[in-house]
Amino acid sequence: MFELKAKVLDIVSNKKEVLLNDLDAEREGINVYDRVVLSCNERRVVAIVEITKSFIDTGFVGINGNVQSELDALDGELVKVSLTEVPQSIGYIRKKMKGDKLAKDEINTIVNDVMTGGLSDLEIAGFLFAEQYEGFDPNEVKFLTDAIVGSGEVIDFEEPAYDKHSIGGVPGNKVSLLIVPIIASTGLLIPKTSSKAITSPSGTADSMSVLAPISFEVEELKRIAKKTRGVIVWGGSLNLAPADDLFMRVEYSLQINPKAQMMASIMAKKLAVGVDFLALDLPVGHGTKVDTIEDARKLGREFVELADKFGVKVECGITYGEQPVGHTVGPALEAKEALEALGGNGPTSLIEKSTALAGVLLELSGTTPRGRGQEMAKEILASGKALKKMREIIEAQGGDPNVRAEDIHIGDQRVKILSPADGYVVSVDNEAIKSIARAAGAPIDKGAGIKLHAKRGYIVKKGDPLVEIFAESAAKLSEAQALTMKLEPITVEGMLLGKVS
Amino acid sequence: MFELKAKVLDIVSNKKEVLLNDLDAEREGINVYDRVVLSCNERRVVAIVEITKSFIDTGFVGINGNVQSELDALDGELVKVSLTEVPQSIGYIRKKMKGDKLAKDEINTIVNDVMTGGLSDLEIAGFLFAEQYEGFDPNEVKFLTDAIVGSGEVIDFEEPAYDKHSIGGVPGNKVSLLIVPIIASTGLLIPKTSSKAITSPSGTADSMSVLAPISFEVEELKRIAKKTRGVIVWGGSLNLAPADDLFMRVEYSLQINPKAQMMASIMAKKLAVGVDFLALDLPVGHGTKVDTIEDARKLGREFVELADKFGVKVECGITYGEQPVGHTVGPALEAKEALEALGGNGPTSLIEKSTALAGVLLELSGTTPRGRGQEMAKEILASGKALKKMREIIEAQGGDPNVRAEDIHIGDQRVKILSPADGYVVSVDNEAIKSIARAAGAPIDKGAGIKLHAKRGYIVKKGDPLVEIFAESAAKLSEAQALTMKLEPITVEGMLLGKVS
Repeated sequence: MFELKAKVLDIVSNKKEVLLNDLDAEREGINVYDRVVLSCNERRVVAIVEITKSFIDTGFVGINGNVQSELDALDGELVKVSLTEVPQSIGYIRKKMKGDKLAKDEINTIVNDVMTGGLSDLEIAGFLFAEQYEGFDPNEVKFLTDAIVGSGEVIDFEEPAYDKHSIGGVPGNKVSLLIVPIIASTGLLIPKTSSKAITSPSGTADSMSVLAPISFEVEELKRIAKKTRGVIVWGGSLNLAPADDLFMRVEYSLQINPKAQMMASIMAKKLAVGVDFLALDLPVGHGTKVDTIEDARKLGREFVELADKFGVKVECGITYGEQPVGHTVGPALEAKEALEALGGNGPTSLIEKSTALAGVLLELSGTTPRGRGQEMAKEILASGKALKKMREIIEAQGGDPNVRAEDIHIGDQRVKILSPADGYVVSVDNEAIKSIARAAGAPIDKGAGIKLHAKRGYIVKKGDPLVEIFAESAAKLSEAQALTMKLEPITVEGMLLGKVS
Repeated sequence: MFELKAKVLDIVSNKKEVLLNDLDAEREGINVYDRVVLSCNERRVVAIVEITKSFIDTGFVGINGNVQSELDALDGELVKVSLTEVPQSIGYIRKKMKGDKLAKDEINTIVNDVMTGGLSDLEIAGFLFAEQYEGFDPNEVKFLTDAIVGSGEVIDFEEPAYDKHSIGGVPGNKVSLLIVPIIASTGLLIPKTSSKAITSPSGTADSMSVLAPISFEVEELKRIAKKTRGVIVWGGSLNLAPADDLFMRVEYSLQINPKAQMMASIMAKKLAVGVDFLALDLPVGHGTKVDTIEDARKLGREFVELADKFGVKVECGITYGEQPVGHTVGPALEAKEALEALGGNGPTSLIEKSTALAGVLLELSGTTPRGRGQEMAKEILASGKALKKMREIIEAQGGDPNVRAEDIHIGDQRVKILSPADGYVVSVDNEAIKSIARAAGAPIDKGAGIKLHAKRGYIVKKGDPLVEIFAESAAKLSEAQALTMKLEPITVEGMLLGKVS
């Protein structure tokens, strides 16, 4: 136990961290990432140690906003510091690393410590790796789901709610913008909460934000949903399953996504909005998250079993994911394409996938007999009811209900990339498409993105356009164009793939 | 690409990190842990993004000392910032995560990025977990060793050098303080570099520091070693295999130690001091790093094969590790016990283990025939030559050559813990012993530690002392005493292990 003067650091983070001078740390036998207990004003807080040579002088302890508010210490106030033991959750993470199963309480404790900042990102990574390599059994996935749901708000619509979710990986997947109005137009409740893009060029929330506001409080959301039967909003403003976001931050950095974590994450987000019936889209193929149909079947079965433990009925649709859905990628381009499709003028891949998944929900609800769902969804689309419902939703969320597809602002910096040869398009590279659209400015620049003029199986002539890039600045356009030349997102059979001189 | 004003943060770290305001980050589509390239003054540096809500204002970018010196940016200077791709080493880490083998160049790139701060601790953790779970083949371990050796200084003594190393885990293991003088007294060169304790109550360097200075420059070390044939110094001052320390920092936090990393770490530290012959101590049993003799044999064989690739001859000694070596734990207590043992008055376990490992080196050198090594080591010890050599070494390193065991300062705050029952000692808990000695103040307070009055197999009467705790302050003594009551480090058959009321 020793005493240091508090130096308040105006850094906001959910972590509880303190910064010690390395001379103080060495003298007291404290190493980086050790835990200390600070006490002051009869309050105590446990924090993780970071060490600096000069940013904090000897005799001082740097405390961030999170530690400061719990400790109620002022700048210069004396704080007692002593080494302390690691939290119990660390023991549970080690237990999983050894391959043992975790109990409900143990998983709860871990998720709770993630929420309160008691675990460092390194320790959270330890948990995720243990999950990845040692695996979770179905009960552990259920416990994890429960704990993540419990970390935030749970919305109760007081009636059965329907939803659609994709495990992701495919660019241009604007199907929710069609599915929600199709389902809502039948009177079923579909309160779709969606995410903004993290690594992709546009999330559903980004595309919807082109048509209407997407951030709402819980009570507003309930009010709108009751009225229109459907909404498409951003989940980030609703404090749903917030522990999930803290795990995702570490997963993003490590680019890992353990299966148990993915399942618990999806399930928790759905339970937090009270979903009873879910159509789950599992895109498969090279470049997606699931390599083979067999893997998708297995994942689907596991997901159905997990949902069953919560009384949620899930049906999984395995879909082709090796190229973008429709022809556009990027927030405004996707909103435009969705609006055109609702108006009866959409590309086949978008119409087929949207109505297939909407059909799953119609069948789950008993609205149509098995095998008749997609047909009914197509009828709703063709009748104009889905477009009418979409305009109601846009208006209820505060957008312009009379918006026309041609009014949507698309970036005016444009370039077409032409085919260097005659032949068939033999492949379209999802990863390259995403990188190029992001280089062009998506999702931040809403008008930026890519339009595919050719997709797999198309026959093209030399000089025909393959893709068109849209940007809002000349600099980003040329960056995206250079990347297109390098990555060659579309391969035409017969084209020269490289030169050796 | 956008511009921000530099705000220099006086934080010294080997990482290249920049701090952005969250509004700037969100507008530019930058996430925490993304990488950006900063440019200014025709210089470029890639750094990892941290995000703050208020510590850095919008329009500014916080740069630490490491980034600042490469960029040569002044406070307030305009810096261009743009997102950039992850370094190649990230791709190699992912490759290992997928279970593929890494090539020499790939491992080199990873170690180099660890050294230059180009990888975050999370990414280093990713590498260590991949190593742990996917494993390294013998070539990969060799490449890793090479890369770690190459990260720092390599000392060439221009003659064969001998060494002894323990993989650790056993408290009170002061055998190097006996082995070095035994070997050096025969004229063989044994330049022992050792570490300070990280999680244990005393490293060899901590114990030696009670007798003489331990920090030297490379040239001084060579001069002393040439003269005395033996040294016992702290490796930390010599810049040997520094990449190893950066990996260990993350391993320490995660409490993992992948086998490949342990092997490469030991081998690299030995190659950096030009060792040709090594006796490797593998303590086995509950509470050590190796559970069974079979595991120890396997590890030993793998280590011998690795060393062989570098032309180093290794012989492994598998030793009993389920209780401390000798009777004392803590820097001064261990130095005292070692000095007594060199004077002919040491506990059997210490004498037997030290002479057995010294004997391995004598046999490896050809000084004695196979099977005669330990006998010769015991003769050297009994003759007083080892004590004489130890006094020469202490003097050459700048300590008092006439130091007597009874002169060594031991903490004067003391308490004996008595046996609650008659019976045999059936177990001694290494982990508990370490925790209690650290609670008493070791290794920072040199006089703090534990003396075991009874070890496994001893018969004790109720009221006989089991352990004695030494500390330099009353507060730490009572902390250590309370921990002893809680952890019960010594179990006597027949004693009450708990009460249920």
